[in-house]
Amino acid sequence: MWRLTAEAFAEADLTRDAFLGGRVNLYQPRKGYRAGLDPVLLAAAIRAEPGQSVLDLGCGAGAALMCLAARVPDLTLTGVERQPAYATLARRSAEEAGWPARIAVADLAALPADLRQERFHHVFANPPYFDPAARHRAVDPGREAGLAEDTPLATWVEVAAKRTAPGGEVTFIHRAERLPDLLGAFAARLGSLELKPLLPRSGKAARLILLRGRKGGRAPFVLHSPLVLHAGAAHGSDAEDYNPAVAAILRRGERLQFSA
Amino acid sequence: MWRLTAEAFAEADLTRDAFLGGRVNLYQPRKGYRAGLDPVLLAAAIRAEPGQSVLDLGCGAGAALMCLAARVPDLTLTGVERQPAYATLARRSAEEAGWPARIAVADLAALPADLRQERFHHVFANPPYFDPAARHRAVDPGREAGLAEDTPLATWVEVAAKRTAPGGEVTFIHRAERLPDLLGAFAARLGSLELKPLLPRSGKAARLILLRGRKGGRAPFVLHSPLVLHAGAAHGSDAEDYNPAVAAILRRGERLQFSA
Repeated sequence: MWRLTAEAFAEADLTRDAFLGGRVNLYQPRKGYRAGLDPVLLAAAIRAEPGQSVLDLGCGAGAALMCLAARVPDLTLTGVERQPAYATLARRSAEEAGWPARIAVADLAALPADLRQERFHHVFANPPYFDPAARHRAVDPGREAGLAEDTPLATWVEVAAKRTAPGGEVTFIHRAERLPDLLGAFAARLGSLELKPLLPRSGKAARLILLRGRKGGRAPFVLHSPLVLHAGAAHGSDAEDYNPAVAAILRRGERLQFSA
Repeated sequence: MWRLTAEAFAEADLTRDAFLGGRVNLYQPRKGYRAGLDPVLLAAAIRAEPGQSVLDLGCGAGAALMCLAARVPDLTLTGVERQPAYATLARRSAEEAGWPARIAVADLAALPADLRQERFHHVFANPPYFDPAARHRAVDPGREAGLAEDTPLATWVEVAAKRTAPGGEVTFIHRAERLPDLLGAFAARLGSLELKPLLPRSGKAARLILLRGRKGGRAPFVLHSPLVLHAGAAHGSDAEDYNPAVAAILRRGERLQFSA
């Protein structure tokens, strides 16, 4: 079950972290759920155009929303986050950047009435997943809520599809091992599905996947060539050995193209 | 609907074709369904060990069975093929090679009673798929039956899973665009699923997929790094520019490892 964090973090418990080479500055709890690579890659994959509306389900402290806003101007930004303290951080980071975001505090299975009457051009999510290794380390309830799977994946996809306008797109990033469930849920509600595997290194199995679907889409499923995150065949001493396309995403805020 | 070919091809309408650098010689109709890359790659992916039993659903003229027999000695070879003329070719090629194969003429949804009482260590299939481009060229009913999808994919997987012994493996090769259906059918009946995408060239979307599952398996799904078939980034004038690992499979009959 979900355990509530405090309504707000103490100022001393926060860090202000730079993403996309400083284009984004994000308030995050020092101890708790902290954004890694996943929301940055997710934001880079969203094909939003200026003026469109986007919804981030389970937005946490707003990493994906902020990274997307830094790349695509004039978006209408909406997030849903059930932990109030994280929602507060997302609002604050967005406001300081001059990209005002509406962040609703809600469980995604019980969205507020106003949100349930809206449709968005792009809906995306980085659903939590149960990671046994991380769980051993998780003593913070906020971090644990960010890692546990107490809402079924099918519910995430159902809510995302319902909130997407006809012709709009749903994009998820998730652990590769959840592909069977995720693909089944997407196929039941969306069309024109496209899968982009993310490999840690060339020749290794995918750790993450990006999956995109279009509401009302009818194009055949496409399994794209993988994006290989790190250069070289083995782990080096340098954790920053990103491939050029990945470095361009992480450091210059460029787009992640499925077909490249 | 399926249209029956003649009971047997005339001798003048046959070719005898070398596969795996001459390790396999296969009788095939000059005009009709002729084996391409797919059954060779499928056979290379089967992890059979000497002495085990294998079942090829929809074996056609026996390309996958023969390629597997050439790599792994002492297998008990069984095939099911609903077109009698193709079944006859499979039997003949196997007999001449000294690898006797039992080929049942049957629709896979109505297997003979003896087969319905057996379980195999490995069951595999290269199900037909509807290819609009090929259909325009198909004037031969045997070839058309090999390309049409008149048996649902879920039925193929259901029959394959039922005929597999506990701990045994089911392996399919199919068009990448059918992954959502195929993965759903596998996930409903098998575990320890592993997906191997086959890309025509580096950076291109997958054209084919290999999907493997274990009966009673409980390991997490694995999305492996793709096997890239052709070297170079674009189509050259030489159609034989296979990558070394692929050339080793096609010309020397080596194994296709998912984790390489």
